[in-house]
Amino acid sequence: MQYRFADRVAQAPESFLDELFRVSADPSIISFAGGLPSSALIDTEGIARAAREVMEEEPQVALQYTTTDGFLPLRQYIADRYRRRLGILATAEEIQIVNGSQQCLDLFAKLFLNTGDHVGMERPGYLGAIEAFSLYEPVIDTVPLGEDGPDLTAFEYLVKKTQVKFFYGIPNSQNPSGQTYSQEKREAIVEILEGSSTIFYEDDAFGELFFDARPRLPVKYRVPDQAVISGSFSKTVAPGMRIGWMYAPREILKKFNVVKQAADLHSNFLCQKILHRYLTTHDLDAHIRTIVAAYGQKCQLMCDLFDDLMPRLTHTRPEGGMFLMATLPPGLSSRTVFDEGVKNKVAVLPGIPFYVDGGGTDTIRLNFSSASEDQITEGMHRLSRVIAGLSGRESPPYK
Amino acid sequence: MQYRFADRVAQAPESFLDELFRVSADPSIISFAGGLPSSALIDTEGIARAAREVMEEEPQVALQYTTTDGFLPLRQYIADRYRRRLGILATAEEIQIVNGSQQCLDLFAKLFLNTGDHVGMERPGYLGAIEAFSLYEPVIDTVPLGEDGPDLTAFEYLVKKTQVKFFYGIPNSQNPSGQTYSQEKREAIVEILEGSSTIFYEDDAFGELFFDARPRLPVKYRVPDQAVISGSFSKTVAPGMRIGWMYAPREILKKFNVVKQAADLHSNFLCQKILHRYLTTHDLDAHIRTIVAAYGQKCQLMCDLFDDLMPRLTHTRPEGGMFLMATLPPGLSSRTVFDEGVKNKVAVLPGIPFYVDGGGTDTIRLNFSSASEDQITEGMHRLSRVIAGLSGRESPPYK
Repeated sequence: MQYRFADRVAQAPESFLDELFRVSADPSIISFAGGLPSSALIDTEGIARAAREVMEEEPQVALQYTTTDGFLPLRQYIADRYRRRLGILATAEEIQIVNGSQQCLDLFAKLFLNTGDHVGMERPGYLGAIEAFSLYEPVIDTVPLGEDGPDLTAFEYLVKKTQVKFFYGIPNSQNPSGQTYSQEKREAIVEILEGSSTIFYEDDAFGELFFDARPRLPVKYRVPDQAVISGSFSKTVAPGMRIGWMYAPREILKKFNVVKQAADLHSNFLCQKILHRYLTTHDLDAHIRTIVAAYGQKCQLMCDLFDDLMPRLTHTRPEGGMFLMATLPPGLSSRTVFDEGVKNKVAVLPGIPFYVDGGGTDTIRLNFSSASEDQITEGMHRLSRVIAGLSGRESPPYK
Repeated sequence: MQYRFADRVAQAPESFLDELFRVSADPSIISFAGGLPSSALIDTEGIARAAREVMEEEPQVALQYTTTDGFLPLRQYIADRYRRRLGILATAEEIQIVNGSQQCLDLFAKLFLNTGDHVGMERPGYLGAIEAFSLYEPVIDTVPLGEDGPDLTAFEYLVKKTQVKFFYGIPNSQNPSGQTYSQEKREAIVEILEGSSTIFYEDDAFGELFFDARPRLPVKYRVPDQAVISGSFSKTVAPGMRIGWMYAPREILKKFNVVKQAADLHSNFLCQKILHRYLTTHDLDAHIRTIVAAYGQKCQLMCDLFDDLMPRLTHTRPEGGMFLMATLPPGLSSRTVFDEGVKNKVAVLPGIPFYVDGGGTDTIRLNFSSASEDQITEGMHRLSRVIAGLSGRESPPYK
């Protein structure tokens, strides 16, 4: 039978992400290609205890349907944390629970994008956002992302001339680049936004993972009505529960709630309950300090190995998060490095899917959170041999 | 700030469902308005045991990211169950895990509906489907639903003339009506479908809840490439875990997987693991027999009370599921019955949101799974007094 798919998916390419999960599943391959937080740093005992308590004390409630907005005490916890960490006067009414922050990308695009509408994002930009937005058939305009944030001239053009419906960015330890916006850039962004009709969408998956533990102020702090923040417990507690949130002005959240309800009624309640119990009976800050210390060390190790073993590659120097990005020597393609890498039991992610315009062929993304330090050392040596081997086969540029 | 919402939501009405959850939350109100399975019949001990085992044996895996398609052994279990229960040769590759079957409605519509495309459904039709489909701005064509299934002339017109992209129906114990398609109707539907370009979407949330425990053959059994089935553990195990599935031809599922990944990467893995552990260590069939026995008795009680106390109302006589529908005496409006009911501490759901054309003002939906038998008895007495009171205030028709 010939299926009559909608236009939005008829051309959709198969995703690269599942290929990655499969590479990650081969234990002989050291993978820097995925985006997993460290399994070893998940507080499995603490979560097990929280799960036991919820199942002992109120199993009938936790296993029943609930309201779309999410478990109120959990939303309250999230709002309180914004107040405590960043001095932002968030309220529970501005928080909607979702299935990991990826769901915010889908539902927010659904809420704002008509076919052909313009939306802005960083270049390179997060693959999951490109995939989610594309299904609403917008025009995606990109702004080059530098060491300290987006190019302001290009950003201003998108806001003032193109009047993008919203600009999507990851100001803290961006995925894929690892870059963090400077305070100056954030202030300049606020100035450009003011008086415009563009919403700033801050994906803050990594804001709690700065190696120096110093919080950076979100753009939303200065333009609360004109910005939304998506957050996630995937990197601080555990991804498998799929609990994230959207923090947005109530007028937006009211409609967001309607599309959330149509999408899946509500996020799984059992995990909301377990997570809330965990958060209120354990010291999340201490747990995050442990994660951050480990990730900081791994990131430093990876950077050092790049500098020692592959001096012809340039790479970013993240202040936090889980990723860095490297640029290959001229003539080397990231796809070739991926293919040769897998043959040699080390996987990196080609930068290509992070560029909506076919760019990024000379970039690779590396995850430093998932592998152990020994694996990072061994994997980077494997990668350096792959790069050396490929470089040796290059035609010299003067030939 | 003036937000520039997309056309698809600018007009979206606020949902009625959250109002219902709030009514349900008032313990002094006996609510037949919601759609909750019986909390008392959730096997909390069994699920607690399964949760404990998962958290003891493989917590790092269960709490980490996983693949979009879902936990393979769970998909295998679902496929095996189709084979065992219905003799359908389903395979795990045809099963995609989702966040309760509501997510199938959203993602399937996303996969097939361009703005202005025609989609068919029953009249009355499931509210959650209307809400999910509407966001893709299709034309929704309806087919009157009778005691034994949809009107075949209207159905044939939609398939052959309108050529709806898909027809959405609930052949087993429909929500809201409680009606079940007869075997003859199913066969006639198959004949009409054959050779057409319309997909038949069977929402099978209630197929395991027939009071006589006799399985009904899905339409998909006869036209496997032209039908999909959505299923759910919400009614047989527990809704709070939000685990359902889409059973579809692989060509459809491949693209469905792409939109699922863009929507939220994957469904929560911890609950997939707990659920699978529960299913493989407990006797689901015996558990379902317990549920079905209780629901059958409650349904009978509600029907008897209607006949005894409110003989001027007509009502459906469900063979299974969780709902029945009643038609009010001439002149009575369901909205008034809802409002007066809540004042008198009994809630029923007006039929209106189940009609895309503004119909249903004289119908109410009642849930019989959630309340206890005592509550049903008391609630139906309250309802009969409300109806009697309102009828007394009616102008006699001959006046």
